[in-house]
Amino acid sequence: MFRHSKELQFEVRPERPDALFAAKLQELVGGQFGEMTVMMQYLWQGWNCRVPGKYKDMILDIGTEEIGHVEMLVTMMARLLEGAPSETQAQAAAANPALAAVLGGQNVQHAIVTGGAAMPTNSQGVPWNGGYIVASGNLLADFRSNVAAEAQSRLQTARVFQMTDDPGVKETLRFNLARDTFHQQQWLLGIEQLIEDGFTDGIEDSLADEEKTEPGRTFYSFHEGSTAHEGRWAQGTTMIGNHEIAFEEGRPLSDDVQEVPAPDPLLFATYDGSKGPGKPGDGTGAMVQGAENLLHKAKEKLTGEG
Amino acid sequence: MFRHSKELQFEVRPERPDALFAAKLQELVGGQFGEMTVMMQYLWQGWNCRVPGKYKDMILDIGTEEIGHVEMLVTMMARLLEGAPSETQAQAAAANPALAAVLGGQNVQHAIVTGGAAMPTNSQGVPWNGGYIVASGNLLADFRSNVAAEAQSRLQTARVFQMTDDPGVKETLRFNLARDTFHQQQWLLGIEQLIEDGFTDGIEDSLADEEKTEPGRTFYSFHEGSTAHEGRWAQGTTMIGNHEIAFEEGRPLSDDVQEVPAPDPLLFATYDGSKGPGKPGDGTGAMVQGAENLLHKAKEKLTGEG
Amino acid sequence: MFRHSKELQFEVRPERPDALFAAKLQELVGGQFGEMTVMMQYLWQGWNCRVPGKYKDMILDIGTEEIGHVEMLVTMMARLLEGAPSETQAQAAAANPALAAVLGGQNVQHAIVTGGAAMPTNSQGVPWNGGYIVASGNLLADFRSNVAAEAQSRLQTARVFQMTDDPGVKETLRFNLARDTFHQQQWLLGIEQLIEDGFTDGIEDSLADEEKTEPGRTFYSFHEGSTAHEGRWAQGTTMIGNHEIAFEEGRPLSDDVQEVPAPDPLLFATYDGSKGPGKPGDGTGAMVQGAENLLHKAKEKLTGEG
Amino acid sequence: MFRHSKELQFEVRPERPDALFAAKLQELVGGQFGEMTVMMQYLWQGWNCRVPGKYKDMILDIGTEEIGHVEMLVTMMARLLEGAPSETQAQAAAANPALAAVLGGQNVQHAIVTGGAAMPTNSQGVPWNGGYIVASGNLLADFRSNVAAEAQSRLQTARVFQMTDDPGVKETLRFNLARDTFHQQQWLLGIEQLIEDGFTDGIEDSLADEEKTEPGRTFYSFHEGSTAHEGRWAQGTTMIGNHEIAFEEGRPLSDDVQEVPAPDPLLFATYDGSKGPGKPGDGTGAMVQGAENLLHKAKEKLTGEG
Amino acid sequence: MFRHSKELQFEVRPERPDALFAAKLQELVGGQFGEMTVMMQYLWQGWNCRVPGKYKDMILDIGTEEIGHVEMLVTMMARLLEGAPSETQAQAAAANPALAAVLGGQNVQHAIVTGGAAMPTNSQGVPWNGGYIVASGNLLADFRSNVAAEAQSRLQTARVFQMTDDPGVKETLRFNLARDTFHQQQWLLGIEQLIEDGFTDGIEDSLADEEKTEPGRTFYSFHEGSTAHEGRWAQGTTMIGNHEIAFEEGRPLSDDVQEVPAPDPLLFATYDGSKGPGKPGDGTGAMVQGAENLLHKAKEKLTGEG
Amino acid sequence: MFRHSKELQFEVRPERPDALFAAKLQELVGGQFGEMTVMMQYLWQGWNCRVPGKYKDMILDIGTEEIGHVEMLVTMMARLLEGAPSETQAQAAAANPALAAVLGGQNVQHAIVTGGAAMPTNSQGVPWNGGYIVASGNLLADFRSNVAAEAQSRLQTARVFQMTDDPGVKETLRFNLARDTFHQQQWLLGIEQLIEDGFTDGIEDSLADEEKTEPGRTFYSFHEGSTAHEGRWAQGTTMIGNHEIAFEEGRPLSDDVQEVPAPDPLLFATYDGSKGPGKPGDGTGAMVQGAENLLHKAKEKLTGEG
Repeated sequence: MFRHSKELQFEVRPERPDALFAAKLQELVGGQFGEMTVMMQYLWQGWNCRVPGKYKDMILDIGTEEIGHVEMLVTMMARLLEGAPSETQAQAAAANPALAAVLGGQNVQHAIVTGGAAMPTNSQGVPWNGGYIVASGNLLADFRSNVAAEAQSRLQTARVFQMTDDPGVKETLRFNLARDTFHQQQWLLGIEQLIEDGFTDGIEDSLADEEKTEPGRTFYSFHEGSTAHEGRWAQGTTMIGNHEIAFEEGRPLSDDVQEVPAPDPLLFATYDGSKGPGKPGDGTGAMVQGAENLLHKAKEKLTGEG
Repeated sequence: MFRHSKELQFEVRPERPDALFAAKLQELVGGQFGEMTVMMQYLWQGWNCRVPGKYKDMILDIGTEEIGHVEMLVTMMARLLEGAPSETQAQAAAANPALAAVLGGQNVQHAIVTGGAAMPTNSQGVPWNGGYIVASGNLLADFRSNVAAEAQSRLQTARVFQMTDDPGVKETLRFNLARDTFHQQQWLLGIEQLIEDGFTDGIEDSLADEEKTEPGRTFYSFHEGSTAHEGRWAQGTTMIGNHEIAFEEGRPLSDDVQEVPAPDPLLFATYDGSKGPGKPGDGTGAMVQGAENLLHKAKEKLTGEG
Repeated sequence: MFRHSKELQFEVRPERPDALFAAKLQELVGGQFGEMTVMMQYLWQGWNCRVPGKYKDMILDIGTEEIGHVEMLVTMMARLLEGAPSETQAQAAAANPALAAVLGGQNVQHAIVTGGAAMPTNSQGVPWNGGYIVASGNLLADFRSNVAAEAQSRLQTARVFQMTDDPGVKETLRFNLARDTFHQQQWLLGIEQLIEDGFTDGIEDSLADEEKTEPGRTFYSFHEGSTAHEGRWAQGTTMIGNHEIAFEEGRPLSDDVQEVPAPDPLLFATYDGSKGPGKPGDGTGAMVQGAENLLHKAKEKLTGEG
Repeated sequence: MFRHSKELQFEVRPERPDALFAAKLQELVGGQFGEMTVMMQYLWQGWNCRVPGKYKDMILDIGTEEIGHVEMLVTMMARLLEGAPSETQAQAAAANPALAAVLGGQNVQHAIVTGGAAMPTNSQGVPWNGGYIVASGNLLADFRSNVAAEAQSRLQTARVFQMTDDPGVKETLRFNLARDTFHQQQWLLGIEQLIEDGFTDGIEDSLADEEKTEPGRTFYSFHEGSTAHEGRWAQGTTMIGNHEIAFEEGRPLSDDVQEVPAPDPLLFATYDGSKGPGKPGDGTGAMVQGAENLLHKAKEKLTGEG
Repeated sequence: MFRHSKELQFEVRPERPDALFAAKLQELVGGQFGEMTVMMQYLWQGWNCRVPGKYKDMILDIGTEEIGHVEMLVTMMARLLEGAPSETQAQAAAANPALAAVLGGQNVQHAIVTGGAAMPTNSQGVPWNGGYIVASGNLLADFRSNVAAEAQSRLQTARVFQMTDDPGVKETLRFNLARDTFHQQQWLLGIEQLIEDGFTDGIEDSLADEEKTEPGRTFYSFHEGSTAHEGRWAQGTTMIGNHEIAFEEGRPLSDDVQEVPAPDPLLFATYDGSKGPGKPGDGTGAMVQGAENLLHKAKEKLTGEG
Repeated sequence: MFRHSKELQFEVRPERPDALFAAKLQELVGGQFGEMTVMMQYLWQGWNCRVPGKYKDMILDIGTEEIGHVEMLVTMMARLLEGAPSETQAQAAAANPALAAVLGGQNVQHAIVTGGAAMPTNSQGVPWNGGYIVASGNLLADFRSNVAAEAQSRLQTARVFQMTDDPGVKETLRFNLARDTFHQQQWLLGIEQLIEDGFTDGIEDSLADEEKTEPGRTFYSFHEGSTAHEGRWAQGTTMIGNHEIAFEEGRPLSDDVQEVPAPDPLLFATYDGSKGPGKPGDGTGAMVQGAENLLHKAKEKLTGEG
């Protein structure tokens, strides 16, 4: 359960409205790596965390903080949009380049849809969607995703920081930059903790025994004259298992040449008959097996053997 | 420029068709972390890589390999869908549980839309979209995203591996598991190489000097009784800068209480007048500044001072 | 079945082209509450209406009118886009702020994709989608949605009205404003009629007897110092049942603390074993029950008892 | 800023896992009217509310409660998915209808993507998106949308309630039904309060003076033999202004016949020349006007008249 | 403007309800090539048609017919969904494969969201969206798209036809098959008419004079051992211009090797400095040119030369 | 399997950066008919082609070429975005119309998200998605779609060609125009080859015998005064079967008047009881039939008759 307080976690006090900048700031609200994404990603991971105690608590602490970050940016947007052009301005624009730029670069949904407030969309107006978030139940894989999200998010914040010289906006973004720096480290330290606690060796390797050997330690190059062999990724030992990394030219490892089977004639696919008649989709295989199983099961049960 | 050869990189030979499994396999083709994602993500990063030589070549080598992985899975899908039910089967299903399951769990677009072939969608039928990929131009941030993508992708492959006992399918997935294990390490080694080459210290910290100090080294907890302080992320030193991590109760760091300004009256927002009249959106600020600048610029130019 | 006539329901005669305004007008064509939404929403509700006669006829009358409203706005767009910039204009823009604004704020798909015509998208270029509409089969719930759609749509129309001073455009929007005013009332009167005809008491309360009592009449506050208790929603009697509304601080009404069960080991979720071994996902419960039922049913049938 | 507590607002204790039901429950989590929608909608409206005090506080109280409702359902999903089939089950399904149904109707992302947990998607796997929510800044229009959301949401909850007979699930849904009943009334009482406080007369009628008269009080019928005239919406007085509602056959109110202008020749649209040459898209109108304004402005400024 | 009549264009009388088939039929309602697509595509093309008379009338005639086809299928869906399972059926399913299949394969939104009616989505639940339609203003390009839409739509109808043996459903689909056969020809005849009327030579070749010569008549092969040279597309004469088609191995036609320029340092892209310092994004080029033009224009105007 | 070479298929050398043009060029990269679409569409069709030899090879040749076209445009974008504005420019814009236009019309994701590179989105920022492509397995239907894609794509390229006067950009687009001209013909020649090889008569007519006769040769008009009868589509003989085309006024061909059945009472749809009680959704029909079949099947098997 959640509770709310009126005070923001950190102040968001632009010195002056700026509709053009507000249009850009949408990326940090509702973009692929905006605050809505990390908020939802961490809450979801926390709620589903199967390890009670420090891991679950940590994830939910950060997820709860991020709700407050969405709140901060949405509030800042309303302030940036104060007095944004909402009227026809054709003649004024004709004589005023600054206004022309605002009219051209403004996000018009800020006026038409929200009446001077943020949208749950990115800087191009695309709605935030649940396909951005990651919560797999595997903490190593998820912490890797979280490090990446914080790194991308911080990079975007740094880029946006350059696009304003409003001291109030910059003050808030300085706070956000710091949190992103800290959070990157926190998720990396989380991985160290997972290793220390024996949950992983740092590489997601479920079903390790099932893997092919060669392709697990070989860099394949598909490019004539590639210099990729010069990098650490193509030489030295693997990070797990201590194998020597090989560098090879990529080539087919099989003689499988993409033939696809004859189509079911009822699907009206184009076909020349070269592979014989297609198998009609009557589920025959399943049917035969099902009938046999049914018979077996019924006999077993009726004779009391089951 | 690209060239193609008929042989697949690795064989994809299911022993028997299985429409139910094909529906699940769509996740590895067109899901958030399916082969279409890594193919597009790496090609895009490679094309835009600003460091010629080993980095650019390496990224494009892997991107090119991944086109072949989409090809492998799409071919496997056509084989798994041979003879999938395409006809009315109401009566047959009534007596046959196996067929009933197939009819219930089948992806009907496999019959209606593609005529027995893969879709560019995930396991729930949602089309793959460009919002899944990441290519920021910052290799540290992107390699972090690539590690995460390989970890999630490998985890999903391991889960799907359990859902079949077709030896041919398993053989292919064993190859894919190995590549995902190797690729995770490769991107992590790429980060080591970036550090060695002096491009980064491992944490994305552009504009590091602008950051606030405190929030860059403090874990805030927003949860009574949180045990998050027990983890490495809330104690010890930071990974960069060698600062001591603090653990504090989350609290508002400002007295900013979410007031939003009076709305432009032309936007018809609900407002009680308590903050005075709203600023009409006539772009006045921009206007005044623009006119002044225009005058200044014109004078400068006309008098040859500019 | 539908028939068409060449005359528009109301005239759409802009005095002059205006590509910037056309970009904004897209919101009223293909936005969340644009004409495509109400057209589709009402047609869908009408086709599925289970009460023949005045309700079904009324809904389909309005749905049919709305096809004509899409037609009006699409026609107006083609006229507004006459002579919109379709050529390179770099040098011209350099000396002309008005043209600069048009080039900056124009929807470039109007030139590239449609050749000077409307798109089925909103003002930010996001395609209209079926997720906007509502047709539940429950007329009370749907009429509530329809009132809301008309109110939002009218508000957006009023905002857009301010963004032009073309008398021809304004003339058309005056007609649309009037229809939205009337349609709001019409759906509200529809609710009155539903009450009068005995279909509802105005609150959607299917399965009313199953509801918990307390949470059905209590305002919970999750905010220290909230003044929400001052409103009518937190005092007086409920609208149905004549109960006294209570105002309480929000608190957990249970001791359920978010524990989630041990994961299936085949899913490779991170887990510390603290809740014992996970239940492997073999559908055991279903299996056992299924076999028993199968036996019972077969016996019943074979012995003629069923 | 937000804080979290471990206890759920209300208990979510299914008696037994049920993967089939979990697939359906997704609609109430991430569907058009699921808990994610109302949570985001109310938080957004609250943050942007221009009337401080009871309105803003009330909206944020409910928004905060709804975060906890998402939390409840996500937790319930993890419990419902305990031991959901994650392995190949072909032979077992062949003999077991119950298992066949589970395999057929299960949401396979629950196993492949989340490892036994909820997705931020609807019951068909479509990701939640920001296009579902409404926050216009106009409280009347938004409260209308909120009543509708609660009515639709309650209706869906009632339908889902019938699809399980797990007493634990039903207990939670009884709580949710009650909240939806209360919340419908609360938003309706909010409208009464808005009227009492003088913010509206209950119909969104910004720019009322600009409206056309006739279309604001007339029901147009587009259907031969329509019985729509029998309803209250087509007779009696309007809800505002006390006018008599008219019922008329829908007919074109203008002689405007859908002609669209000659296309810009550079757009390569198909055109027969019947309306003369198209206007090339060189922004001439804007250009001329812009140049004149520029001249005027510059003169004004240089002569100190501006 | 449109009018409606109660009678359907053609009857839609399923003999019995069939929820499984209804789930599949969604593809023909709201899929990429469903009735919503052709309805919207033709109406949009018709409204924007720049050639008054027979072309515009023809397109609008068919668009109007297609509204009625959506109506037919939506009505059929409501009938197919009569008595679809809306209750918990766990035990019943355990003994009944037919019911198990229905429960597994049913579109649960048909019960939860619409109350027994069609959704505006495809067979996998993905909402119809405006990105499916095409209306370019160029009749040749659009008629090509229309032929394709009818061919795909007819193929899907034929596939779906096989999935039912309800005589009533088949009767309706027989009508739809016939219309799709006719409409394919109609759009092809439309192209013949365009050629006869002198609007095109059948190939979209705007700006034909600007084209490169060689690449306009050469088949490039990127595949060792490709047999593509055997087809008509790689030999004989071109369809326009009467050139000989060449068949060549695909090779780079330039020495351009994918170098991308040094990045703006403010974007924090990874860069090794090998191409010198990046150009900071201050719009210098535009600035210089703009200032010059401004000066020139102002002088021109002030001296009355412009 | 694929291989890559560093050289581009054709040069992409803009003479100077142009951020405004880059925003438009996105349509040709990630739009409905951009290079990503044709690349994915042809690869998918090729992988699934059931006719080995010249057809499959030809489709894959072109698909492989198109990967290189995406590569060309993405590389061009990075060059066009060199030095695009990434900093705050408010004051500069105030005096400079050219810069104002760039700031207003720039795609801000080019700076914030990619650091000066292309996005996998269209010109309005909407992500490319798999719903754009077509691969049905039926070569006639797919070649029709391919002709349409090339025609639309070429038309858009011609429109974009007018929007720049950079000789380097034009040089590349001249190559692309030529390829689109050739590819249109190639797919049309592919249809001729399909006819010659006996796979089709040029009209998709699977299940031709099932079609209704009349609707297969009649143009229905739904528009008073329609002149559609003047076109070839409404007179003369059909393209297959040599029937005379009829022209008729559209009218209902049945007396089916849109009644929908009584709703399941558990769905809480609004209903007046006029059609008797609704059928509760217990799957009765399926149940009865299922039990009978089960009995029959079991008997058959137990007695060895099956």
